[in-house]
Amino acid sequence: MSRQSLSGFPEWTPSGRVVEQHVLDHVRRTFELHGFAGIETRAVEPLEDLLRKGETSKEVYVLRRLHDEGDTARERQLALHFDLTVPLARYVLENANSLVFPFKRYQIQKAWRGERPQDGRFREFTQADIDVVCQDTLPFQFEVEMPIVVAEALSGLPIPPFRIGVNNRKVSQGFYEAAGIEDVEGALRTIDKLSKIGPTGVAEELVEAVGATAGQAEAALALAAIRAEDESFADQVLALGHRSDLLDEGLEELTRVVAAGARHMPGVLVADLSIARGLDYYTGTVYETTFIGHEGLGSVSSGGRYDSLVSDGKRTFPGVGMSLGISRIMSRILGENLVTATRSVPTAVLVAVTDEASRTDSEAVAHALRSRGIPTETSPTAEKFGKQIRYADRRSIPYVWFPQTGEVKDIRSGDQMAADAAVWEPPTEDWWPRVVAMDAR
Amino acid sequence: MSRQSLSGFPEWTPSGRVVEQHVLDHVRRTFELHGFAGIETRAVEPLEDLLRKGETSKEVYVLRRLHDEGDTARERQLALHFDLTVPLARYVLENANSLVFPFKRYQIQKAWRGERPQDGRFREFTQADIDVVCQDTLPFQFEVEMPIVVAEALSGLPIPPFRIGVNNRKVSQGFYEAAGIEDVEGALRTIDKLSKIGPTGVAEELVEAVGATAGQAEAALALAAIRAEDESFADQVLALGHRSDLLDEGLEELTRVVAAGARHMPGVLVADLSIARGLDYYTGTVYETTFIGHEGLGSVSSGGRYDSLVSDGKRTFPGVGMSLGISRIMSRILGENLVTATRSVPTAVLVAVTDEASRTDSEAVAHALRSRGIPTETSPTAEKFGKQIRYADRRSIPYVWFPQTGEVKDIRSGDQMAADAAVWEPPTEDWWPRVVAMDAR
Repeated sequence: MSRQSLSGFPEWTPSGRVVEQHVLDHVRRTFELHGFAGIETRAVEPLEDLLRKGETSKEVYVLRRLHDEGDTARERQLALHFDLTVPLARYVLENANSLVFPFKRYQIQKAWRGERPQDGRFREFTQADIDVVCQDTLPFQFEVEMPIVVAEALSGLPIPPFRIGVNNRKVSQGFYEAAGIEDVEGALRTIDKLSKIGPTGVAEELVEAVGATAGQAEAALALAAIRAEDESFADQVLALGHRSDLLDEGLEELTRVVAAGARHMPGVLVADLSIARGLDYYTGTVYETTFIGHEGLGSVSSGGRYDSLVSDGKRTFPGVGMSLGISRIMSRILGENLVTATRSVPTAVLVAVTDEASRTDSEAVAHALRSRGIPTETSPTAEKFGKQIRYADRRSIPYVWFPQTGEVKDIRSGDQMAADAAVWEPPTEDWWPRVVAMDAR
Repeated sequence: MSRQSLSGFPEWTPSGRVVEQHVLDHVRRTFELHGFAGIETRAVEPLEDLLRKGETSKEVYVLRRLHDEGDTARERQLALHFDLTVPLARYVLENANSLVFPFKRYQIQKAWRGERPQDGRFREFTQADIDVVCQDTLPFQFEVEMPIVVAEALSGLPIPPFRIGVNNRKVSQGFYEAAGIEDVEGALRTIDKLSKIGPTGVAEELVEAVGATAGQAEAALALAAIRAEDESFADQVLALGHRSDLLDEGLEELTRVVAAGARHMPGVLVADLSIARGLDYYTGTVYETTFIGHEGLGSVSSGGRYDSLVSDGKRTFPGVGMSLGISRIMSRILGENLVTATRSVPTAVLVAVTDEASRTDSEAVAHALRSRGIPTETSPTAEKFGKQIRYADRRSIPYVWFPQTGEVKDIRSGDQMAADAAVWEPPTEDWWPRVVAMDAR
């Protein structure tokens, strides 16, 4: 049996998993407190559906049964999903008649992309998504709330300070159209490369590939240079002089998002007119989140408003969503040793066993402690107490209980005291493993 | 976009997912209370490793990158794991130098098998596994505790009464050898088919395929017919007259497991000498669990002791484990409508919005409630209150809060009363969605 790690398929140690579970529990709780219901979708979709949306077609993993007796030709080809948005769209259509709208759902699952692994970019990764999907019309308020929920989910985590950038597709599109740029989607895709190829590269590509004039390229770059933590971005946009109804609508929407952000999380939400998001299904607000000082890691939470991603031809289900890149966040938390777990096993108490004849006494103590929610093990052998204490120590179990004398020992301090299994509790900080900052250890 | 379900890839409604999440949370908590640490492994393993163990090789899903530019030939072929035991073995070997033994781990993840879907048998399914792995030697006590932990995990669930059957490979092997059956593994595989092909079919196969005499086949069937909830099984085995040292060792071990079971969960654990388990890596105690009255569903929790599954040639890591078939259990719970969720959204309170100008008042109430752990939404629009109440009703949100009058209304009873967002709490049964038996609804 091989025992090598696979590049792009990260796995954590038990201690790293304590940290990840802490992250996942906090994110889930935040989503649920805001009224999002959890669902899971299957890991696979028909290949043809995955190729219809997005730009990741070349990175899809296709499935094949090893001993395929030719029946795959009759079945549809299946592939692993590369995000949780396409599966959501399919789930909504499949269950449209039984779901109640607005459908607010969260989904925490793995996704797969066969691309070359890089820092913070994996072949298998965990995403935590929230979306609100409505039938026919989507109240704009949901576009306002989305980054507030994400900021709350991130705020409780042991991560660097972060910034959520917002833009609105209507602003970009309205501006480009008013400036006379014909290939709006091409311009958006080029502007999306700003951090990779810089303003000179973008200007070149806008002229050569997108067909813009030098003046149009300059205007697009001037728009993309605008940043503001308050509503002042709107005047900066208008000062560029390319105005349209669509632009005005976009500015009004973006102003509402930025104003609510300033109220709920001052300094966190920033209007960033360079945000384009590559995917062509976004039609309104778009979001991108970076760790301050770790911009090279890329976005840790992105998303946007989509009008017609979910449609069966007759009915349309507009939505808005954001996705948290749990694996990317975890790789930074664990890679930079920002935090550690106080222990890697859940166990708070090891109940010693004096001899096999009295094992039932030890089991009774363990049962009493567990019934009050205290994670407890019974020693697997009746070795000498010194060996049982070393057994606990090796596994970082903080307390050893001696049923014969009715005493419990904190093996870190050596303190030992009489205790009643019906009422004794460990101090709060020892009850379950905790996640602590490395410098506070 | 297609919107069809795929046979063998089950998905639950939001309400069904409330039930599944309840099951998963209870199982995870039970495992952690007993000191098992959670890990996750990647979904894929090198194909060659998956084909080395177990009997499911033909059901493996192999991965292929859609736009593979010939580099897969250089990379190792990857396939989706079909259980969580082979990945555990690889994880232990990969991390042997950093793990602390005994390594008690639980793992709740999806697995995939490309076999034909049937009742309770899926192509994508969730397993919840516990294993204890040691270096060199494994204390027998862990074989005793395994079914006790599983029984506790199952006891808190909304499921039919269940029975955990136990046997010991040493009993079967020692007995067969003493009876002169040469192909012990062949005999085990044939006995494993008892529930499918019946005693006549088994006897035929033992004689024709395994090479046993008619008398040996009769003896093997007599052994497999033994059932007991107490230690009396041992005398029944000895009465058959085929004795060996290995058999005696197995009987002593099985007696310890059954005695502890009778003490901790009378009537649940049963010595069942027909249990063989197909997989050839088991070497000691083996387990199989069925819902009473639903035997056709197959085993919902199986496992056993393995001596040499995990080995790097120099060191050996013996272990014992059991696996809970979450998807199989869920399919029965939901398929038979045994339970329902009190609501499908987490939200307990909808805070009404009088007009957009006063939305911040509504947001302040929602924030105060959420900060005390009460799942709360703010109305997305400032429609008439009647419409906002219908919005809550449609989504099964039990309470609507009116910030202007400082009152909260139970929209089921119509009761409305003054309330302070800093102290008000919903009754316990309304706080979060609960899972209730259908007849108690």
